[in-house]
Amino acid sequence: MGCDQNDLLRVDPDRLWQRHMDMAKLGATERGGVNRAALTIPDVELHWLLASWARKRNFAVEIDDYGNQFMRRAGSDPHCPALVSGSHSDTQPTGGRFDGISGVLAAVEAMEVIDDAEVCTRHPIEVVIWNNEEGTRFRPSDMGSAVYVGDTPIERMLAATDSEGVSIETAVDSLRARIDWAKVRQLGTPIAAYLELHIEQGPILESENIDIGIVTGIQGTRKFEIHVIGEEAHAGTTPERNRQDAFMDAVAIVNALREIFYDPEDIVRFTVGRFEVSPGSLAVVPGRVLFTIDFRHPDNDVVQALGDQVAEVCKKAAIRCTTEVMETRSALSTSFECKVQQVIEKCAKQRAYSFKYLPSGAGHDARYMNSFCPSGMIFVPCYKGISHNEKEYASPESLAKGAQVVADSLLMLDEMI
Amino acid sequence: MGCDQNDLLRVDPDRLWQRHMDMAKLGATERGGVNRAALTIPDVELHWLLASWARKRNFAVEIDDYGNQFMRRAGSDPHCPALVSGSHSDTQPTGGRFDGISGVLAAVEAMEVIDDAEVCTRHPIEVVIWNNEEGTRFRPSDMGSAVYVGDTPIERMLAATDSEGVSIETAVDSLRARIDWAKVRQLGTPIAAYLELHIEQGPILESENIDIGIVTGIQGTRKFEIHVIGEEAHAGTTPERNRQDAFMDAVAIVNALREIFYDPEDIVRFTVGRFEVSPGSLAVVPGRVLFTIDFRHPDNDVVQALGDQVAEVCKKAAIRCTTEVMETRSALSTSFECKVQQVIEKCAKQRAYSFKYLPSGAGHDARYMNSFCPSGMIFVPCYKGISHNEKEYASPESLAKGAQVVADSLLMLDEMI
Repeated sequence: MGCDQNDLLRVDPDRLWQRHMDMAKLGATERGGVNRAALTIPDVELHWLLASWARKRNFAVEIDDYGNQFMRRAGSDPHCPALVSGSHSDTQPTGGRFDGISGVLAAVEAMEVIDDAEVCTRHPIEVVIWNNEEGTRFRPSDMGSAVYVGDTPIERMLAATDSEGVSIETAVDSLRARIDWAKVRQLGTPIAAYLELHIEQGPILESENIDIGIVTGIQGTRKFEIHVIGEEAHAGTTPERNRQDAFMDAVAIVNALREIFYDPEDIVRFTVGRFEVSPGSLAVVPGRVLFTIDFRHPDNDVVQALGDQVAEVCKKAAIRCTTEVMETRSALSTSFECKVQQVIEKCAKQRAYSFKYLPSGAGHDARYMNSFCPSGMIFVPCYKGISHNEKEYASPESLAKGAQVVADSLLMLDEMI
Repeated sequence: MGCDQNDLLRVDPDRLWQRHMDMAKLGATERGGVNRAALTIPDVELHWLLASWARKRNFAVEIDDYGNQFMRRAGSDPHCPALVSGSHSDTQPTGGRFDGISGVLAAVEAMEVIDDAEVCTRHPIEVVIWNNEEGTRFRPSDMGSAVYVGDTPIERMLAATDSEGVSIETAVDSLRARIDWAKVRQLGTPIAAYLELHIEQGPILESENIDIGIVTGIQGTRKFEIHVIGEEAHAGTTPERNRQDAFMDAVAIVNALREIFYDPEDIVRFTVGRFEVSPGSLAVVPGRVLFTIDFRHPDNDVVQALGDQVAEVCKKAAIRCTTEVMETRSALSTSFECKVQQVIEKCAKQRAYSFKYLPSGAGHDARYMNSFCPSGMIFVPCYKGISHNEKEYASPESLAKGAQVVADSLLMLDEMI
């Protein structure tokens, strides 16, 4: 990439910011956040908008069987697989305006400035919107990329339904119906390299005043679903000794789990995010509890050792109820390809942006992509590291610098790979 | 009541049982229980059925502004207030086939055998269906009787809405629309005496092989709603020390509450029945928890002393979150009128039924009625004391004996009062 090209290739911070604000209206919550579950009406609308922008520029639009959407600017070599950048557009129920969508919009911005500069790349360049990364509508999360790379068979996933019984298959049909000019993307179509920008979701970059985080890898994780099965009883008449109180036993189990997951160094991440009590009535001793464990650690040995204790601890801690423990997800910790990290560093240096190598606490689709093609991630600072929260914030300047590095890195990868 | 009348006045065990089974179809659950929230479609259907039976016998039907329904067989003295018997028809979400409805059907059976025997009573005899006793659709519970006797102003209650935003007022309108021949009952219309049959919801009568429980009173209760307010955060990136995890603080609070409510004699009833975690997503540190405490004890001093500690214990036990504690309900323990207890005893003896005096662990509408007119309760045995549970069971024989005592007691009260 020559110096003159470098000057032409300037992302537009105002356009990028405005698009963040426009997208935040789709699924906006009262408290300034976003609730945009995968392929719900606002999310389909977002997909349609981006597909429409792509169509205006004659970019191809493709949707695969899991609902992942690709927008492609052609390359000069018809045999070259695409360089892909993007992220997801779905959010947590009380999510923010940046998690996921910033990576999509950075990739759109990059593709558009490359197009505006009339740069002829050898590889096609694609923006991807992975479907259902958060996993709040369809469980589990990150299945868009997992299914795409063949880690998880699509057959097992298509039948997954949301809380109202709507299947992923039906949701994808409604996406395709809305974007009726989109072609079918075959799952597993080769990709030359994958780059994902994301807000850090941690406090390091902001507190150290760093522009660009070069992500070294993603920590390992295991997720569990625990059912505690007791017996409903009348709250006014049933003595404690006669109760099989699923709530009280679940609390005893959580107390025991906290002990084994306690980490004085505070590196273990242990979260009970769902905890559902049935029947959930003031005057009824609960008969059932379902709760989840989300556990993460960068060291695969720790991931293994602690995770293996969960079922036993639950069984032992339950006093009068029975327990069922299911492991719903696991992923070893991942290290991103070195050459992609180096490309990001070079591009940051070229623009005189400060940068820092750091691991990712959160999981991302890049985890699955890394097993499929050279992959990397760019973090941008976010306010106090707050994420999965309506207060989530990243500044226009940070987002623009990140998108700039995405654009530059795509062109450098085009020459390298 | 003469001996010959006694012979004429025989309840019909088969009819009574068949009606229990028929009513259990309205809101039947898959596991053999009943889910019939107040004034939902199956509950309105039940009200309509009973009103239709009443109409066939030319009994008046009246509905008050809270949705309590009265069915009246006229007495000889137009100035006499009614002798009322009944209970409620709503159930817990995983409730049984007997709680509430048995009291209504016993009263219907009593009124019908009195009518069939052409007994001319001085007082009118009424069957009542109190609305929303369980309080699972509209909170709090027992408001039908509380509003009727003026304990709670109706204005405060009419605006109460269910989880879908439907108000009690709207629900009552739909009941009146279905039973369009019902007249309006004025709240607070005087009542001469009140008698309520109920399954025991405890194990004593069954285990001691007793036919009739003569209820001495109802234990005192205080109910609380506790909000734990923290901050949502990302489960993968947020260190424990930076979290304001509303779930973990709520668990710490429950641990602390269990300690103060621990009772080696097992007389204290302490239940956390609702426990709702927001946003309730696997990968989000919970930002809010709402939970309820249902606490009961027969001794008013204990009710006072333990209940007064709740707010302070919650505040102290919370580690990084704030708490809001609201007392949503309280009721002192109640003793039923002696003369009503004596009438029940006489009637049981007359039929050679075994009987036992015992207190009620559960709350009932009879609590509020007792402050309004001479009131009493009759318990019948139920299987292992199981209630608020789909397995709830009472035998046809037990129910028939109970209904017989209701019929006999109403006639004895008619002569006495």
